[in-house]
Amino acid sequence: MSDVFDLTCELIRRRSVTPDDAGCQATIADRLMRAGFTVRHLRHGEVDNLWATHGDGGPTLAFLGHTDVVPTGPMDAWRFDPFDPTVVDGVLYGRGAADMKGSVAAMVVALEAFVAAHPDHAGRVGLLLTSDEEGPTNLDGVRRVAEQFRTEGERIDWCVVGEPSSKARLGDLIRVGRRGSLSGTLSVRGVQGHVAYPEKAKNPIHAFAPALAELAAERWDEGNADFPPTSFQVSNLNAGTGATNVIPGTLTALFNFRYSTVSTADQLKARTAAILDRHGLDYALEWNLSGEPFLTPPGGRLREVVVDVCRELAGVVPEQSTGGGTSDGRFIAPLGAEVVELGPVNATIHQVDECVAVADLQRLPALYEAICVRLLVDAAHG
Amino acid sequence: MSDVFDLTCELIRRRSVTPDDAGCQATIADRLMRAGFTVRHLRHGEVDNLWATHGDGGPTLAFLGHTDVVPTGPMDAWRFDPFDPTVVDGVLYGRGAADMKGSVAAMVVALEAFVAAHPDHAGRVGLLLTSDEEGPTNLDGVRRVAEQFRTEGERIDWCVVGEPSSKARLGDLIRVGRRGSLSGTLSVRGVQGHVAYPEKAKNPIHAFAPALAELAAERWDEGNADFPPTSFQVSNLNAGTGATNVIPGTLTALFNFRYSTVSTADQLKARTAAILDRHGLDYALEWNLSGEPFLTPPGGRLREVVVDVCRELAGVVPEQSTGGGTSDGRFIAPLGAEVVELGPVNATIHQVDECVAVADLQRLPALYEAICVRLLVDAAHG
Repeated sequence: MSDVFDLTCELIRRRSVTPDDAGCQATIADRLMRAGFTVRHLRHGEVDNLWATHGDGGPTLAFLGHTDVVPTGPMDAWRFDPFDPTVVDGVLYGRGAADMKGSVAAMVVALEAFVAAHPDHAGRVGLLLTSDEEGPTNLDGVRRVAEQFRTEGERIDWCVVGEPSSKARLGDLIRVGRRGSLSGTLSVRGVQGHVAYPEKAKNPIHAFAPALAELAAERWDEGNADFPPTSFQVSNLNAGTGATNVIPGTLTALFNFRYSTVSTADQLKARTAAILDRHGLDYALEWNLSGEPFLTPPGGRLREVVVDVCRELAGVVPEQSTGGGTSDGRFIAPLGAEVVELGPVNATIHQVDECVAVADLQRLPALYEAICVRLLVDAAHG
Repeated sequence: MSDVFDLTCELIRRRSVTPDDAGCQATIADRLMRAGFTVRHLRHGEVDNLWATHGDGGPTLAFLGHTDVVPTGPMDAWRFDPFDPTVVDGVLYGRGAADMKGSVAAMVVALEAFVAAHPDHAGRVGLLLTSDEEGPTNLDGVRRVAEQFRTEGERIDWCVVGEPSSKARLGDLIRVGRRGSLSGTLSVRGVQGHVAYPEKAKNPIHAFAPALAELAAERWDEGNADFPPTSFQVSNLNAGTGATNVIPGTLTALFNFRYSTVSTADQLKARTAAILDRHGLDYALEWNLSGEPFLTPPGGRLREVVVDVCRELAGVVPEQSTGGGTSDGRFIAPLGAEVVELGPVNATIHQVDECVAVADLQRLPALYEAICVRLLVDAAHG
């Protein structure tokens, strides 16, 4: 149907469940090298990272994406094989279609077109890819690459992240910042025993229940002009030996805060501990701060350009949001970069029957290419 | 040292981990046939059951036991090989010493002595053994035999179960009933999604939390003179994909009621559903009733005889309890039998270093034999 469609399908067929790249980056590297890009493979641990650039000197515009996808979930709940891209009624189904193999394909096609049309553009354009965005720790992905860039003095001025930002139509929402992400691993200790002798045991499920209800009902803050209220979600809750006649000795809960600049990580830690303490629990709690909040303020050049491109090429004035998850933009922002996220509609990401509208996919390369032109051609001549 | 000691050791040496009888019942059948008993082998599936009787007509007194044992647990945590009976300081160590090869050996020795001394006793005495008391389902053990007895019109009037009932000294506690056991498997349905977009998902952990707190705090009944209050315990609680950034789509909880005769299974089911419904949960709930409560009321002949025997031969007035787990008595009681449980001290059952005091073991046959005499000889002449 088109170059971007074909490349998206090729990437979906590769079963790159995080952190396995499954050859996606090699395919892309081949194409960009043929287009004149300089390619670096930055493998860390089991994670593939790719840094492809064109041009030198002047400001750097980097596109940022990931080739890994989340697991499929129950295969029999999918209408189609999640690794066999399928089009029905103008919609392309497949794991990663929206998050974010479609965006990655659009970036590649946009960059090829841009350097073909403007071989002597100002500054540099680059594409940074990782295969460890969807995993639990992201230690060896963009976090590690950003550390390396900092050490090497590699500078990024503007960063466009391909995360699926749109709500109902392409370009109706862009991300201009992200909430912080603070995770906790909680172990509640009880005393194991036989269900017939509860007086000799202490059931950690029963002990934790009222604290869990309180944590789930808590209003952590009201957010502010840039950020929605802080949210709290328990992702995993496990207790029990499997045996039905045994009261378990411990309960484990994994939970996560997505927090605004209204709250600090330390405040959230203290309030969580206060609730657990008030219920008299015997517990151990480990924290992991995976990303502090960041914000690209209004008036930044990249933010203006992306808004203009959405309005002019997608016909919609985008909402400028800081909602949603974290993105790898949190590692690039501290390098001094303006970071904006623009990608397709995210309604189905991480779910079964993940999909993207083929029409949106076809239009996305033009948006990315226009951002390149306005920052590295028009600006240089303007 | 004695016949009951030697037979207990012989049974312990047989590695009859549930549901394997490992030849225990064949050994016992040989002895009882030589003593004049009629023996039936009632094998169901992989389970051996033995029904040996002496006499005919009139009331039937059955002794009930099991030849299977629970697994050893970590072998290196035992002081001695659990299948090599060892005496230290007057205590016999081995898997099954207390639960319940000691009782089974005592029953065999008691029955041999009884029919030798009273070959023309009134009524019948019998021994019913299974090799599937300790397993997870007990489908092919006494449950199945009781069905068969019901079909055949096989009547049991009094049943003495050899479960280790004593707390600190032999005969200080007898069971005169058991609570019912009602289990539930609950699935709470939510909508899976990304933790950063809680508004697009529905977290079943958060949805269930207040209902769980209410279930755990509920006072189901106050018990009565014969039973402690009904207890509710969640044994297993699981939700989550393992991924820390995914709100799970479902939560599963396994729970169990140990319930008194104050509540019925139907009432507990209805009250559980009412709590779940009141919290607006989308759920599926499956029930398994593994045993209804039973009670041998005060004034029953067997209960009086066992109390007298404990007082006169063991020198202790027994506590008459309905506590603890279930036992195979729950399958015999519905046949119309009075059921009482009397066995050695249970402090070490299901643990490493399971043991029985040799002195208690030596005294147990006399207690069982006295029950036979009082029900089938004295009563007939009195």
